[in-house]
Amino acid sequence: MFRHVVLFTWSDDATPARQHALAGELRKLPDLIETIRAYRVGPDLGVNPGNCDFAVVADFDNADGYLVYRDHPAHRAVVEQYVNPIVARRNAVQYEI
Amino acid sequence: MFRHVVLFTWSDDATPARQHALAGELRKLPDLIETIRAYRVGPDLGVNPGNCDFAVVADFDNADGYLVYRDHPAHRAVVEQYVNPIVARRNAVQYEI
Repeated sequence: MFRHVVLFTWSDDATPARQHALAGELRKLPDLIETIRAYRVGPDLGVNPGNCDFAVVADFDNADGYLVYRDHPAHRAVVEQYVNPIVARRNAVQYEI
Repeated sequence: MFRHVVLFTWSDDATPARQHALAGELRKLPDLIETIRAYRVGPDLGVNPGNCDFAVVADFDNADGYLVYRDHPAHRAVVEQYVNPIVARRNAVQYEI
């Protein structure tokens, strides 16, 4: 399978309400994008210092399934309306699992 | 469950042989640390530009299980001998799944 991982660090504009809204919108995506096989998102728990703020781990059958997600209008809308306004730093990897 | 995610960016010292050795050592850890429930590591596939180089996603029953892994001598030895010599940047999140 193909796994997509993103770790976000938020800016000072990331109020708790905005972070909560973002998580809620992301969690709607598995119902909207049929190539998603597993989708787990959430805020850092604060166990270790120096961490990023939020994680997305999404699994697909293959790279094509991931590309459907990456470029899907429902996903792009969440990125533009909820992620981009509060993101300071984005780190990503796609790898084979 | 409790998920631990790390994305590494390697330094210029990260030869292919060193990266391969690191991945092999990490993949031995599930047999050595009994609190690991799932463990998937691997190099970035190069689908998108600007990515980090390597991902670790590890699942545990709870935070205590993660802490056993984090502080386990077998894990610390891999970090010290295989990760630290080639790491330029480390990004992590622990979150609830």
